[in-house]
Amino acid sequence: MPTSSASPTPSSVLSQRLAAFRQHMAQAQLTHYWVSCSDAHLNEYLAPPHKRRDWLCGFTGSAGDLLVGLHQAWLFADSRYHEQAEHEVPPEVTVVKLGLPDQLCLRQTLVQQAQAAATPLRLGYASQTLSAQSVAALRKALGTHLGTLPLEEHPQAHSLVDTCRLQLEGGLPPIPLLAHSVVPLPLSLCGHSTAEKLATLRQHMAKHGYSVLPLVKLDEIAWLFNLRGQDIDYNPVFWAYALLTPQQVVLCCHAQALSPAAQQSLNEIEGLQQQPYEAFWEALTQHGRGQTVGVAEKSLTEAVLHPLRRLAEQGTVLHPLATSPVEALKAVKTPQELTAMRCANQHASQGLIKTLAWLAHQAQQGTATTEAALAATLEANYRTQGASMLSFNTIAGSGPASSVVHYGTPNAQHPIPQGAWVLLDSGMQREGGTTDTTRTVLFGGTPTPKQRWAYTHVLKAHIACACTPFPAGTTGAVLDGAARAPLWRAGMDYGHGTGHGVGAYLNVHEGPIGISKGYTTPFEAGHITSIEPGYYEPGWGGIRLENLYEVAPANGLAIAEGSPKTPWLRFESLTWVPFERALIELELLDAHEMAWLQAYYHGIAERMRTPQLPWSLSEAAWLDWQLGLCSTH
Amino acid sequence: MPTSSASPTPSSVLSQRLAAFRQHMAQAQLTHYWVSCSDAHLNEYLAPPHKRRDWLCGFTGSAGDLLVGLHQAWLFADSRYHEQAEHEVPPEVTVVKLGLPDQLCLRQTLVQQAQAAATPLRLGYASQTLSAQSVAALRKALGTHLGTLPLEEHPQAHSLVDTCRLQLEGGLPPIPLLAHSVVPLPLSLCGHSTAEKLATLRQHMAKHGYSVLPLVKLDEIAWLFNLRGQDIDYNPVFWAYALLTPQQVVLCCHAQALSPAAQQSLNEIEGLQQQPYEAFWEALTQHGRGQTVGVAEKSLTEAVLHPLRRLAEQGTVLHPLATSPVEALKAVKTPQELTAMRCANQHASQGLIKTLAWLAHQAQQGTATTEAALAATLEANYRTQGASMLSFNTIAGSGPASSVVHYGTPNAQHPIPQGAWVLLDSGMQREGGTTDTTRTVLFGGTPTPKQRWAYTHVLKAHIACACTPFPAGTTGAVLDGAARAPLWRAGMDYGHGTGHGVGAYLNVHEGPIGISKGYTTPFEAGHITSIEPGYYEPGWGGIRLENLYEVAPANGLAIAEGSPKTPWLRFESLTWVPFERALIELELLDAHEMAWLQAYYHGIAERMRTPQLPWSLSEAAWLDWQLGLCSTH
Repeated sequence: MPTSSASPTPSSVLSQRLAAFRQHMAQAQLTHYWVSCSDAHLNEYLAPPHKRRDWLCGFTGSAGDLLVGLHQAWLFADSRYHEQAEHEVPPEVTVVKLGLPDQLCLRQTLVQQAQAAATPLRLGYASQTLSAQSVAALRKALGTHLGTLPLEEHPQAHSLVDTCRLQLEGGLPPIPLLAHSVVPLPLSLCGHSTAEKLATLRQHMAKHGYSVLPLVKLDEIAWLFNLRGQDIDYNPVFWAYALLTPQQVVLCCHAQALSPAAQQSLNEIEGLQQQPYEAFWEALTQHGRGQTVGVAEKSLTEAVLHPLRRLAEQGTVLHPLATSPVEALKAVKTPQELTAMRCANQHASQGLIKTLAWLAHQAQQGTATTEAALAATLEANYRTQGASMLSFNTIAGSGPASSVVHYGTPNAQHPIPQGAWVLLDSGMQREGGTTDTTRTVLFGGTPTPKQRWAYTHVLKAHIACACTPFPAGTTGAVLDGAARAPLWRAGMDYGHGTGHGVGAYLNVHEGPIGISKGYTTPFEAGHITSIEPGYYEPGWGGIRLENLYEVAPANGLAIAEGSPKTPWLRFESLTWVPFERALIELELLDAHEMAWLQAYYHGIAERMRTPQLPWSLSEAAWLDWQLGLCSTH
Repeated sequence: MPTSSASPTPSSVLSQRLAAFRQHMAQAQLTHYWVSCSDAHLNEYLAPPHKRRDWLCGFTGSAGDLLVGLHQAWLFADSRYHEQAEHEVPPEVTVVKLGLPDQLCLRQTLVQQAQAAATPLRLGYASQTLSAQSVAALRKALGTHLGTLPLEEHPQAHSLVDTCRLQLEGGLPPIPLLAHSVVPLPLSLCGHSTAEKLATLRQHMAKHGYSVLPLVKLDEIAWLFNLRGQDIDYNPVFWAYALLTPQQVVLCCHAQALSPAAQQSLNEIEGLQQQPYEAFWEALTQHGRGQTVGVAEKSLTEAVLHPLRRLAEQGTVLHPLATSPVEALKAVKTPQELTAMRCANQHASQGLIKTLAWLAHQAQQGTATTEAALAATLEANYRTQGASMLSFNTIAGSGPASSVVHYGTPNAQHPIPQGAWVLLDSGMQREGGTTDTTRTVLFGGTPTPKQRWAYTHVLKAHIACACTPFPAGTTGAVLDGAARAPLWRAGMDYGHGTGHGVGAYLNVHEGPIGISKGYTTPFEAGHITSIEPGYYEPGWGGIRLENLYEVAPANGLAIAEGSPKTPWLRFESLTWVPFERALIELELLDAHEMAWLQAYYHGIAERMRTPQLPWSLSEAAWLDWQLGLCSTH
């Protein structure tokens, strides 16, 4: 999802920045520089001073690294951003369209550059903006290829992009920091106290034989301390580092950001060492010395590995962890978190139903509206439903823009044409819960057969995944096949994953589970994932249908006598919003798909079509018409 | 698949062997001993002297390691062997049923033992019978848990089981070795000369920066040298080790096993150093010294790693390879290999059709027959179709035995009862091709609704996988979900993988591709895999439906405009045998499943119902009745 709502930087300004940056590279005797799109906490949504890639090349997507050579530059965009990247970067930056044939990824590009160069590459990067895993993968790819290690790390504490920006602009944007903005999350919403979480983590540490666990990801730290903040857009987290030992827990944060209640809750934690944000590095060295340190390379920055490697020369042991134990624990929601997630998603569903009914009414009345007006209406409806913030920047793409998978700023100028596709992907944060839903509709008009055919196939993929119970041990890679098979049979596919894990009043994207070929962690009861297949045809439009689901025991499911004796699980929807009746071709649905749809619409009716909910007449009419899909068939 | 056809060893004899073995363990001061079910070449089918686990505990399954403690012993059986293992091992051996809840695998059992013991475990094993990967995984599990490494490797050149057996029985069975049995495979069947394969491999080595590649897997060596032998049951391979360098290729084998033609073909290979089988270890040390050695831990024994680690102390670099490059190249069949595979599978299909027609006739006539008679009839039919050997021991299980996934010796005593399930899983080797097919039928009688329901659901799973085209990059884990989804929706599942790679006139099981949650290698055109979903209900019976498929470009498939621009692939059947008409409930098939079945039956009719094929009247009638399934609908 896009992160910027600023007006685009002119191409000429970007070219000047790149030229200035190359002078800095030359001074540092670097042949290449790797500008990542993350920060010292591996955040997805960045604070303004950390949007280094955006500043240097203009691209505002949530993912996609930049590689700058002395004469060439490459932006590596995944399929969500192929179109957007071409619009945003200046012409001298090559957009590498990952996933298409013959497109080399960053690593392969560097290998190719190394092969072409007479002398070894001198590659710079800021180690605090990259995961240890990504640097290790690059080292491996380059190291083995070239025989010797060609990486030259940039020695400065901050990125060379910052040096350049400071010189050009005389300063960097300030880091956001709101006094008393960090508040405790009550036990009624999170379920487990910090003391309980610490005990579980320390058991894990003892069992696996390590004694120190550093944490840099803000959602892991917010989860552990049952605190929430406002330092990052969309993610209710706060700037902090943490470190666990068998007796102590170190929290390095900005004291002025803590509310009195947050400070009070921290004071109650046994063994807590509260220190300034900047003191983390000293604490890491002090506590890591001579100990066995758990290192989850995916969840730590390369900058954290530097001091640990120095310690390792003096007896510290680095114990590799495939997954951060905090990430794994956090993903299994407590009963209280599940209740909060159900509640928040039900409220978000109400807000989205109101918005879709409003949009249909606008179209029906012939009232001009824009993407921006739609996004604003939705946000207002979410606020009415208790949203404290959005969980990401609303994607409201109309017409051809609907095919831009993670379309940026909703357009405020052009009215949405009659009969145009509207793709609306949005979410909110509310009282312990996080939501994420996508619906695609037409703005009036009569659907064409192709529109109905494509929409129904995306719906089939959604249902194929959502309706399928599965035995414990099943991974997201396997379920990806269940989702895509109906689309593949029609020659259709989408370039993004089928689903991602979602935090409880935390980040809308979290690990370690999700649905796509890379996910090898088995699903467990209490996990939460999106299911969001799509289809995107540039120029024609895009369709995505997304609900959130909790993974629950498949109670009551008739398990055949001969099936292996493992517990079975199934997806239970957290989202209760009808799909677009006018776009569904019932003839294309198989019996099991129809049965799922009927049960789902029954669930919507039960929750949404009640006298308690204050629908307007036109909202009620819209809802009734939509729900009529199943009852009339 | 089972490997033994000897009569079972009495329980009392097994108990004596275990007692004697424990005395040897005590003498060697070992607390535990890991008896694997493999040999120095990581073979699946073992020569008699290498069936150490079978000799010690009586279990004859193709997979399942034995762990012997001083007072306990555990056999780790996967779901294919849960039933069989219980029948075969003596009562003092605990059968661990992997895949069921609360069952600890070998690693977990050792961790548990380590936790319970006051002193560190002293674990023995024969390093030449274990893959380097399995030992590394065990070291990691125990090492991190206990903090220090508790493994004590058994120092002897051969297994402690051999020592014990020698003492008890005065000798070991001889290693099979047939003079002049190794013959060249003509270029018309294999497509690429050894010189071409060496050039490709050397390119791979240069590109990835290593200069020495040791090989111990017999199918990799047979493939590289375009030779085939008879030293192992079912796998047309011969005893050998090999080693590649940029200029030389070392083949260590028994010269007396080579036919003059094989020797002639070896003489033509540039840079070949032909050495005695035993000379490999010396060659490994000599060629590895000071070089970078490619190490695919899955494809090498731990015994090979020992000398390499010693060399590494003096400057040799071990370069880890995720997959053996020979395994990866071998899996992508040449056009000539594909032609040979199609031809061999067509012949095997003819043999199986004749056999199924014969079986139906026996049932119809009320003629008593046995599993052994069925297996013998099938083998005779395969021989008539040109089989040089079977590709594995035929599984012919009837009645409740059909639910034993990899049932052992077909029973020669009891007639198959009328109306009983018969599961027939078989394959043959023929002129450059390898086959593997399973059909399940009833021996007369009228199917019950449950039988038809279960059979049709397994068929739905087969078709769901077989009929689904997919974009390049798709892995076997993802396709596993496409196959299982229709079964899961009915509460059904099976405990084995959905498919495995198959060699071309080589091993019926080969990597690196296959269909189950562990397969992360993307499919490519030229790969060959089985699709074989099943359903097994102990006491009631089992169903498995297996065809082989080649992966081919999906030419002519209408790809939607908006699908990512990657090549698409699809499965094309190599097997042409009808499914059992009496067991198919057409009402349960979706439109796309019916369309696939019709096209498949059209393909069978085209190939099998031709005047050229000399069917008897009853065979022709059986075939026509089966093929009538689609035409009458």
